[in-house]
Amino acid sequence: MKFSIERAALLKAVSQAQSVVERRNTIPILANVLIEAEGSEVSFRATDLDIEVLDKAPAQVERAGSTTVAATTLHEIVRKLPDGALVSLTADNAAGRLTVEAGRSNFSLATLPKEDFPVMASSEYASNFSANAAVLRRLFDKSKFAISTEETRYYLNGVYMHIAEGDGGKKLRCVATDGHRLARIDADMPADAADMPGVIVPRKTVGELRKLLEDDDMMIAVSVSETKVRFATPQITLTSKVIDGTFPDYTRVIPQGNTRKLEVDAADFARAVDRVATVSSERSRAVKLQLDEDRLILSVNAPDSGAAEEELAVAYSDERLEIGFNAKYLLEIASQVDRENAVFLFNSSGDPTLMREGNDTSAVYVVMPMRV
Amino acid sequence: MKFSIERAALLKAVSQAQSVVERRNTIPILANVLIEAEGSEVSFRATDLDIEVLDKAPAQVERAGSTTVAATTLHEIVRKLPDGALVSLTADNAAGRLTVEAGRSNFSLATLPKEDFPVMASSEYASNFSANAAVLRRLFDKSKFAISTEETRYYLNGVYMHIAEGDGGKKLRCVATDGHRLARIDADMPADAADMPGVIVPRKTVGELRKLLEDDDMMIAVSVSETKVRFATPQITLTSKVIDGTFPDYTRVIPQGNTRKLEVDAADFARAVDRVATVSSERSRAVKLQLDEDRLILSVNAPDSGAAEEELAVAYSDERLEIGFNAKYLLEIASQVDRENAVFLFNSSGDPTLMREGNDTSAVYVVMPMRV
Repeated sequence: MKFSIERAALLKAVSQAQSVVERRNTIPILANVLIEAEGSEVSFRATDLDIEVLDKAPAQVERAGSTTVAATTLHEIVRKLPDGALVSLTADNAAGRLTVEAGRSNFSLATLPKEDFPVMASSEYASNFSANAAVLRRLFDKSKFAISTEETRYYLNGVYMHIAEGDGGKKLRCVATDGHRLARIDADMPADAADMPGVIVPRKTVGELRKLLEDDDMMIAVSVSETKVRFATPQITLTSKVIDGTFPDYTRVIPQGNTRKLEVDAADFARAVDRVATVSSERSRAVKLQLDEDRLILSVNAPDSGAAEEELAVAYSDERLEIGFNAKYLLEIASQVDRENAVFLFNSSGDPTLMREGNDTSAVYVVMPMRV
Repeated sequence: MKFSIERAALLKAVSQAQSVVERRNTIPILANVLIEAEGSEVSFRATDLDIEVLDKAPAQVERAGSTTVAATTLHEIVRKLPDGALVSLTADNAAGRLTVEAGRSNFSLATLPKEDFPVMASSEYASNFSANAAVLRRLFDKSKFAISTEETRYYLNGVYMHIAEGDGGKKLRCVATDGHRLARIDADMPADAADMPGVIVPRKTVGELRKLLEDDDMMIAVSVSETKVRFATPQITLTSKVIDGTFPDYTRVIPQGNTRKLEVDAADFARAVDRVATVSSERSRAVKLQLDEDRLILSVNAPDSGAAEEELAVAYSDERLEIGFNAKYLLEIASQVDRENAVFLFNSSGDPTLMREGNDTSAVYVVMPMRV
């Protein structure tokens, strides 16, 4: 194998690949990226056995072939090469070396045979559709904060992507929850997505996927089966196993009958919560909300460190209510609001509370109260 | 105690104070800042028993007095208050509370009595002089990287500031070393500094001092005794114990007879070292320099990961030389060069090497070679 490639194109491809590689590997080949050169294209493939990323870049291929080399070392080298450099990569598979040359720099890296690299088995996908990058970005960005980190509840360690009946018809929906809060985000269902099986996309995959979604107008090819999900741009293909479990029936958690409505500027609200939470103890982080006619008092009372109170002008016309929340959860959902006021719908101080942005029901958050 | 103060002035004063406070304290009062209001000024004082910082800010004092309150909590609160806010602080020493009010925010913090706060004993200083902030900044910035982190060699855990005979007369000199590399930085001796006793300024003090030195033209009042050092601006006074030990005779470490001279662009050199070091093993980080007629070859050979080589055009006219160094040390000294080429003076591959910037002998670095 021998090819030349622009440093910028090489860096982009290797960056994406190496980020999938786990830092601590007991299986040496999993630290490597598989490089395959053919025609006028080179592909870079990396895997952690659950996720595989395949990245293609144009190159001047002088001799087709393939090899595998340590992903982080190659990435570091390319990153440190001067901008604009032309990089030449030559594999000597008999000697087990890959030579990387650029200007007066010369690197010789140990390789492992291509045959040892575990390429993910190809699959039949039950559903293939395409979705706009900006749409997918919104679905995952607004839901991922609620992913559970509890390993025992593995079926909550991802975002549940599925088709559901929403306001005005079928929706492509992402839901995440950790039992304390829940995010339910809808987008119009893409054509051909109606038969998509619901899948739980693991946290790490959500993170890797995010890098494919920077360009608003890019169309992403999505393929879904019961066991795998694939997201592809013309350059990059991200394939991931999905979590083998059943996502709980989240619809029962979303309160339908909450009628006490609070409307508040989300940024003002977030800043006030952040301020009063300063004195809360690290363990509890409880913030009390006292609601009265167009008035919200946020307060924290921590025996050790002190007390804090802040008043906000709000729109509220229901009866007096006192309810407590974890400050972190309030801050996280308030920071999802980007256009309009935050609308909270309460029932009682013991019931889950619903939050949405203005009258928009395409992004709905539920947060459990805590006793204060 | 009761006073009002601009949020920006309060934030600046509290920031400086709280950074001295150690995060993990077994003595509760050491987590607190001592606030004293009198006249038209409020002072904020914090200590870790080795360093004391005293910060003054103008305020509208309604009732003189004093109290102590958790430094980090107060800092967090003030940081989160909106820019431009007027902050009112009221101490109720009978109730043991400090009230902090700004706009519609209200905080009540637990206080500890002023009497418990360990104010550092005042001292007689053997020497008092003033030095330009930019001069002090250069002295400490260019030497601090070489401070040892080995706790057993406590006398190397700081910068040795003293008066020494340098090029063209007496100099204010800072030296730091960890046994592997050494930095010796000179500045013209300020008036009245001739009698200054040599002191070892601890690493943490160097870090805190750095914050006083942002403003180039500021004159810093420096006071030195055998046991303490004090740096003061009109607003801030930083007092620190010095390290109770003898700094080794560093002059013997600085080679005088090195004649083989290499001149190289410092930035090119640093980038090349950084690149070839990519393949070095994490333990050794050894880079080999091969010098020949106007040519430098940098190379690394790591059995596990691979090899790297890079050639640089340099000025060198002495005989062939091979010498090895720790890549990290080379990078650190090369990054101290900011105006001219780096000049290296070698003797043999086993002897300490000297580096300076062009012909400037006011900043000299020594680095020990390693076998490669």
